Amino acid sequence: MIIFGIDPGTAATGYGVIRVVNNTVSWVDSGVVTTGCAQDLSKRLEIIYEALWQKMAEHSPDRVCIEQAFYAKNVHTTLILGHARGVAMLAASKSGASVHEYSPREIKKTVTGSGNAAKEQVQYMVKMLISPPREHLKSDAYDALAIAICDFQCSKHRTMVSSYCLGKRKPSPKGRRKTV
Amino acid sequence: MIIFGIDPGTAATGYGVIRVVNNTVSWVDSGVVTTGCAQDLSKRLEIIYEALWQKMAEHSPDRVCIEQAFYAKNVHTTLILGHARGVAMLAASKSGASVHEYSPREIKKTVTGSGNAAKEQVQYMVKMLISPPREHLKSDAYDALAIAICDFQCSKHRTMVSSYCLGKRKPSPKGRRKTV
Repeated sequence: MIIFGIDPGTAATGYGVIRVVNNTVSWVDSGVVTTGCAQDLSKRLEIIYEALWQKMAEHSPDRVCIEQAFYAKNVHTTLILGHARGVAMLAASKSGASVHEYSPREIKKTVTGSGNAAKEQVQYMVKMLISPPREHLKSDAYDALAIAICDFQCSKHRTMVSSYCLGKRKPSPKGRRKTV
Repeated sequence: MIIFGIDPGTAATGYGVIRVVNNTVSWVDSGVVTTGCAQDLSKRLEIIYEALWQKMAEHSPDRVCIEQAFYAKNVHTTLILGHARGVAMLAASKSGASVHEYSPREIKKTVTGSGNAAKEQVQYMVKMLISPPREHLKSDAYDALAIAICDFQCSKHRTMVSSYCLGKRKPSPKGRRKTV
């Protein structure tokens, strides 16, 4: 299974791709799409969309995960972030993969064990878990890889919980009602 | 010249297309793209993008104009509006047309003469100027047509101002400096 993580932003959008085989996770690709602030917003959005779309076509992800937006103090910043998230979600939806969202706190908690973990702690755990190559060590790419890892760990947890629940719900032979 | 106006929103995105020939403006097309609130945000964005993209391919606009976002009191609403604007701007940029933005106040002021005009006044003026067919009389479509009309009137004004300035800057034969 291929999981594609996205950390959206108009200036820099991070992406990270991981592969899951037999519950073992490995690094596939990661990077940052940057746009110049002198460009029109519409052109910047086109650059982000095209880059993500190309990467999704290259890796054919099964799941695409996007960081939930934080609400910046400046409403204008929140609005502009919404534009970048919009085109990232569009690329994800058009790729045919299932689209999932995680809050920054959820990502930190799942990857490091603490919802208040510092950026460095998240990066350390990403390094430990999937050892991305040195040239891919940009902050936004790390965040995107952390989102993908978070999705993998959450789905592992969901599978465990559902199989446990199914096991509990299975009636014992003794308690089974007789139907006539 | 074809001008394509967009009034973006996740629930309802209005579009309006007008044609300008010899400074005379006429209605071409208008409508509203609606999405169900039960759908995922990524699917809703895809519906909006695909519908706008199809309409732009049909009409090949020279200019695409989008309403500038208002900052809703609820930051979440502003963020979600940003998503819809993002995909609308992406469709506009990918169509190859030049992309322009106008504030709601600018649109009202240009179309009705007052920046504080009511919705009904704007609709009345749109009816007077381009007489759209009855079946196209939805509120968001009206707003999109008003944006396109605003762009037409602003560009007419810009042409007048620039030709006046060029005329003023032209040095008179008397004042022309002699160069040796």
